[in-house]
Amino acid sequence: MKTDEILFLTSREIQSLLTLDECIGAVEHAFRLYGEGKAVPPAVLSMHTEDGGFHVKAGLLQLDRSYFAAKVNGNFPENGTRFGLPPIQGVIVLFDGEKGTPLALMDSREITSLRTAAATAVAAKYLARQDSRTVTVCGCGNQGRVQVKAISRVRPLQTVFAYDKDEERALRFAHELASALKISVTPVTDLAAAVRQSDICVTCTPSRQPLLGPDDVRPGTFLAAVGADNPQKQELHATLMARSKIVCDILEQCAAMGDLHHALGQGIVTEADVHAELGEVVAGKKLGRESDEEIIVFDSTGMALQDVAAAALVYESAMRAECGISLNLAS
Amino acid sequence: MKTDEILFLTSREIQSLLTLDECIGAVEHAFRLYGEGKAVPPAVLSMHTEDGGFHVKAGLLQLDRSYFAAKVNGNFPENGTRFGLPPIQGVIVLFDGEKGTPLALMDSREITSLRTAAATAVAAKYLARQDSRTVTVCGCGNQGRVQVKAISRVRPLQTVFAYDKDEERALRFAHELASALKISVTPVTDLAAAVRQSDICVTCTPSRQPLLGPDDVRPGTFLAAVGADNPQKQELHATLMARSKIVCDILEQCAAMGDLHHALGQGIVTEADVHAELGEVVAGKKLGRESDEEIIVFDSTGMALQDVAAAALVYESAMRAECGISLNLAS
Repeated sequence: MKTDEILFLTSREIQSLLTLDECIGAVEHAFRLYGEGKAVPPAVLSMHTEDGGFHVKAGLLQLDRSYFAAKVNGNFPENGTRFGLPPIQGVIVLFDGEKGTPLALMDSREITSLRTAAATAVAAKYLARQDSRTVTVCGCGNQGRVQVKAISRVRPLQTVFAYDKDEERALRFAHELASALKISVTPVTDLAAAVRQSDICVTCTPSRQPLLGPDDVRPGTFLAAVGADNPQKQELHATLMARSKIVCDILEQCAAMGDLHHALGQGIVTEADVHAELGEVVAGKKLGRESDEEIIVFDSTGMALQDVAAAALVYESAMRAECGISLNLAS
Repeated sequence: MKTDEILFLTSREIQSLLTLDECIGAVEHAFRLYGEGKAVPPAVLSMHTEDGGFHVKAGLLQLDRSYFAAKVNGNFPENGTRFGLPPIQGVIVLFDGEKGTPLALMDSREITSLRTAAATAVAAKYLARQDSRTVTVCGCGNQGRVQVKAISRVRPLQTVFAYDKDEERALRFAHELASALKISVTPVTDLAAAVRQSDICVTCTPSRQPLLGPDDVRPGTFLAAVGADNPQKQELHATLMARSKIVCDILEQCAAMGDLHHALGQGIVTEADVHAELGEVVAGKKLGRESDEEIIVFDSTGMALQDVAAAALVYESAMRAECGISLNLAS
């Protein structure tokens, strides 16, 4: 591509370019670099409006080439009922990190979805029991589907329990996922009963009330708390956090908006109780799972380095495949 | 346009769509809304690298329609010598501020250039003497050219003195600007002598040393300090700041990276000495020029609301003119 050319990639093109396995690998590498102190801490910016707000997540990653990416998302929870639009809409702008040249513009949805699930898979790889076979997914939306798929790449899943407060939705989800993954997916109405039979539980809901407490989880479980990404949202009871080994994607962000936020706010957990950031575990600086008995929570709020890693992967694949529209910014 | 369509506009298209007069009007309106407390304070995010860095400036503006824009720029000062690339490269992403839908992607250069000059024109309108006829421009780059053009829209300029440490550059600049503006433009080698004969002086250089002190400026002068946009840059001596009435674009930003930053750092000026933010003057909450004798400095660091105002204007003009390429983000 020439100077001043920027590659435009649609959501559909990104779907065809970004495989889950490659994304998991790229996200694991990003967490490792971060854990090794080889990536500067990513930065965030938020502006709130009456009905929602805008969020910018920016990160810089030294891969074979240096990349910077900024994801700019609007998040308007009532968009569906008000306008028939998705709540989250936005773009990722990818730059050459050494020269500051814009390289690509991408729809943000597919990348956000895959990089979020990829982080859970990386966390499961280091924090779930090796023999984990049963997973409960709480929240049967698109993210729930991708989460289970991602976990299935790192653990030999046999059974999935699908819970949603909308039973119809859980039913549809179970049907679709079973045929996609060729494993047993059972819709359930008793969340706690399902989690008590599971090795892994992923929560990916917009809940503002805790969904799971300490009595709902058996020893040895790995929990990925994915839904809470603003200070109002919560999925895990503070007392469950207190009973668990806590691993954050970014401590500072989890303390501000993750499930950790609520446990800290109630004074049940302190920041010193947090075992590690995921990057430290991946980099080998902190231990992952130390016994088959411990309950481990991965508090996932979403890190810009995941976006940079996934966007760089998409860009390089697109360049190889000569995919996307090349646009000239200047003339 | 349909859902998921984003309008792509090149630098050349933006040049044809964005007139200086309209841009001055839009930027004045943005400062007024901000001064009236009707615009939330804009936000910035920076990430530094060895040779430069990336900056995001984001703002939200309620016009006939609500707009959000994020400008994402790479700034690598050595790009010219190292790669033959401009130091600043980047894009502006414009969103519907109520729904969070991405509306347009624009090259950032033209908008940054015009909105910066427009802020100076707005400041000159409220802070320069009505009878200002003579301007010295210090720094004969592209920004200097646009600055003089913008000031000429609000004051009846007759004479321009053009100074650059590169004399050849000042010569070329004077020649080009004289034929463009049909007024007298004289290249000068003695900056202080020129400023002492001027009603207005604009500094737009990358200087890290003060270029003008208190003895270089006569009573009644309006100075626009445009160059300093990071903590290392400086154009006005702290003692000149102390002698002047200071108006900031955004106090917090000027205190961190404007010429104000250095005056505060030397303890010669306090934040309480700052007369106003420009928005307060435009909104009528604070007085502008109060006598023909006072020296007034406008410390300009660049506010995201200027970008939002200019980008919204460009977008609306493009939609009316059916200009630009409409791209579908989804498929």
